[in-house]
Amino acid sequence: MEAARTPKGALKRYERGSEEFSRTLTLSDGVFAIAMTLLVVGIALPTISDSSSASDLLDALNDLSESIISFFISFAVIARYWTAHQEQFSMLARMDRGFVGLNLVYLAFIAFLPFPTDMLGNYFQNPISIVTYAINVSIVSGMEVVLFRRAQRAGLLARELPEDVYRWGVLVSTAPVAFFILSTPIAFLSTEAAVGFWLLALPFQLLVLNRHKPPQADEYLG
Amino acid sequence: MEAARTPKGALKRYERGSEEFSRTLTLSDGVFAIAMTLLVVGIALPTISDSSSASDLLDALNDLSESIISFFISFAVIARYWTAHQEQFSMLARMDRGFVGLNLVYLAFIAFLPFPTDMLGNYFQNPISIVTYAINVSIVSGMEVVLFRRAQRAGLLARELPEDVYRWGVLVSTAPVAFFILSTPIAFLSTEAAVGFWLLALPFQLLVLNRHKPPQADEYLG
Amino acid sequence: MEAARTPKGALKRYERGSEEFSRTLTLSDGVFAIAMTLLVVGIALPTISDSSSASDLLDALNDLSESIISFFISFAVIARYWTAHQEQFSMLARMDRGFVGLNLVYLAFIAFLPFPTDMLGNYFQNPISIVTYAINVSIVSGMEVVLFRRAQRAGLLARELPEDVYRWGVLVSTAPVAFFILSTPIAFLSTEAAVGFWLLALPFQLLVLNRHKPPQADEYLG
Amino acid sequence: MEAARTPKGALKRYERGSEEFSRTLTLSDGVFAIAMTLLVVGIALPTISDSSSASDLLDALNDLSESIISFFISFAVIARYWTAHQEQFSMLARMDRGFVGLNLVYLAFIAFLPFPTDMLGNYFQNPISIVTYAINVSIVSGMEVVLFRRAQRAGLLARELPEDVYRWGVLVSTAPVAFFILSTPIAFLSTEAAVGFWLLALPFQLLVLNRHKPPQADEYLG
Repeated sequence: MEAARTPKGALKRYERGSEEFSRTLTLSDGVFAIAMTLLVVGIALPTISDSSSASDLLDALNDLSESIISFFISFAVIARYWTAHQEQFSMLARMDRGFVGLNLVYLAFIAFLPFPTDMLGNYFQNPISIVTYAINVSIVSGMEVVLFRRAQRAGLLARELPEDVYRWGVLVSTAPVAFFILSTPIAFLSTEAAVGFWLLALPFQLLVLNRHKPPQADEYLG
Repeated sequence: MEAARTPKGALKRYERGSEEFSRTLTLSDGVFAIAMTLLVVGIALPTISDSSSASDLLDALNDLSESIISFFISFAVIARYWTAHQEQFSMLARMDRGFVGLNLVYLAFIAFLPFPTDMLGNYFQNPISIVTYAINVSIVSGMEVVLFRRAQRAGLLARELPEDVYRWGVLVSTAPVAFFILSTPIAFLSTEAAVGFWLLALPFQLLVLNRHKPPQADEYLG
Repeated sequence: MEAARTPKGALKRYERGSEEFSRTLTLSDGVFAIAMTLLVVGIALPTISDSSSASDLLDALNDLSESIISFFISFAVIARYWTAHQEQFSMLARMDRGFVGLNLVYLAFIAFLPFPTDMLGNYFQNPISIVTYAINVSIVSGMEVVLFRRAQRAGLLARELPEDVYRWGVLVSTAPVAFFILSTPIAFLSTEAAVGFWLLALPFQLLVLNRHKPPQADEYLG
Repeated sequence: MEAARTPKGALKRYERGSEEFSRTLTLSDGVFAIAMTLLVVGIALPTISDSSSASDLLDALNDLSESIISFFISFAVIARYWTAHQEQFSMLARMDRGFVGLNLVYLAFIAFLPFPTDMLGNYFQNPISIVTYAINVSIVSGMEVVLFRRAQRAGLLARELPEDVYRWGVLVSTAPVAFFILSTPIAFLSTEAAVGFWLLALPFQLLVLNRHKPPQADEYLG
């Protein structure tokens, strides 16, 4: 009875196991699958004059190498976000309409991601590529934090997090956003240095953040 | 026994929880996911002569701004229709073949929507863009009303709506259709005025329609 | 125990309710969704010199009318096949690997269908368009018959069909294939006549085939 | 209780029947569906001057024959991998994060496959086409072996395989990889001979590998 109704004025909730919970995941997986494979469309079949010449086709493939690398980087980055999405959503017992709406904002920037990734692959020496990519990735990572907050605050999690675990989780999710934003001025000095700065996020997490990890964090965040 | 058979001559029904009910949602979510992401394909990688020039790439991005804005508007509009679809279908206990067929008509105009949205983004000053968009959106919103009627009339809802709640629901869903259609002559005078007229639908709902809202509406329509 | 094992040498079976049964439907729905929306990609944004001229944009839209009509015809035809697929598969209690493989052959021709549909929309006066379309549609409809036979012969149906109902079902499914194939020579005399001949399939079913309909057919085929 | 928690430090596991298990399949099916249908996008509508000329349209279709054949070969190859994926995953009782990650690597090369297939269809006489295709297909088949190993070693299978059945399974899955890799030097002598060499994998399995098939293999591998 309780599950079938929602208190007057409250946002409707979709319980884990309902069709509505499932289809939010189906739509998300559809957007992820399209975004992952999208850049393969841009790898045009090479045209060569002597169709049986190995060296001509090898040269033509070489010209396509940036597009091919872009495809695999884009796939890897979006696949990484997908696994984070799967892990985060595995903690949910239900969704409410607000959470579903925030997930759609998140998906818009996942769907857009192949574009800046392709720019990055083709104009790696250009600071604008770095900045565009960093902004897009900051928004995606930032939306992960927003979804995490909403899940905790609106009682959507299967097991509510203790306050210290929750705060540490927000901190860990926010750190990459900070690194991406701080890298943007660096990009105008050196694009390599900016990308190097992104990679500092990993040792920062291992050496600094993990020191303050609450003892129960592994149990709750898996 | 009852659920496994359908009375002779009646349309076959697919109960919530069956594979057939689920796959109608899966197909719908697939069409929504493709429609949402489609306009990203049209944002071509900019080509610039000096590949490391920040100002050249910024200019090239600027030229793409209309396509980028079109993508996000299109995503937002279709995402909004998707949440309405999820909410409406969450009220269903079953579907019949007629309802499934009407949903396919609805999906055809969802799949088509990126085209007029892209026209609107690129030719905002052109009344034909406004009219094309308004017609497409009227049909989508109109089909929502048709689906709602069918669900109530064919006994597909988990809880049948009281007649006053149903009538109010039809009225609320029909109102945006009216605003879109009435805006089309205005577009030939001023495209900004036509879009402004669309936005009047919201205060109209809050100030006029909500006054006549039946007391049980929230409980039934969520 | 029975459900978890399959007799040695027999093809593996996937029962309704298993993940494997569901994902055959998910893959099918994915292919259908992509095929349905594919032709929208081909409707390029019109380019006009005076961006605010209503008559220019109307002319440009007029030039696109064949592509737009092709999109809606393609959507409608594939949507029709999808509903037939949903109805046919709703009769299954399980699938075996042979059935899954036949379904993939069927899906290949569904995925290809937008191409001949687009040819038909753009070269309606050309007999080769009619022939290409008729061949593709014959194969799709023919595969429906093959799937229907497999389901009955391999014991995949929830309720095995009485022999007379099964035979009548095969006859009804084969009839459109015959009409499509017989239309191909007519196309070289008149493409309109060939399409008119397709439409004869409907009265043929109502006036000739339905006369021999076994009394239990409605109960079994829904 | 056990199912809801995972031992500290271990990778999170997703049990069959959970939303997380299902959505790994949904994402996979989405990527497969897109990869299968992708090459249809490349079959451009032919443009002919005399739109009602049967011989002109036939000529134009003839020019497209390589693209059309590529589409059907690509569909068939990816469909074959999909059925193998469905069979392999039907043996799983659960997935862990490592397995989910490996599946994503596998999917990246499924998503990329239409590109080398299209090269093969259009430059069949070119050894680079053969080599590119053979490398891609080796990686996909190799990842199947890696997934199979992970499933057995991490205890993800519904019924753990006896050691001899497992080893024979690895051998059978690795054999095609060997044939593809060994074919690459042959391609520089004759592309036909290289493709002929691929086809030897089948009699090799039937005549050599099946001789060493453990008696319980059919029962476990289906």
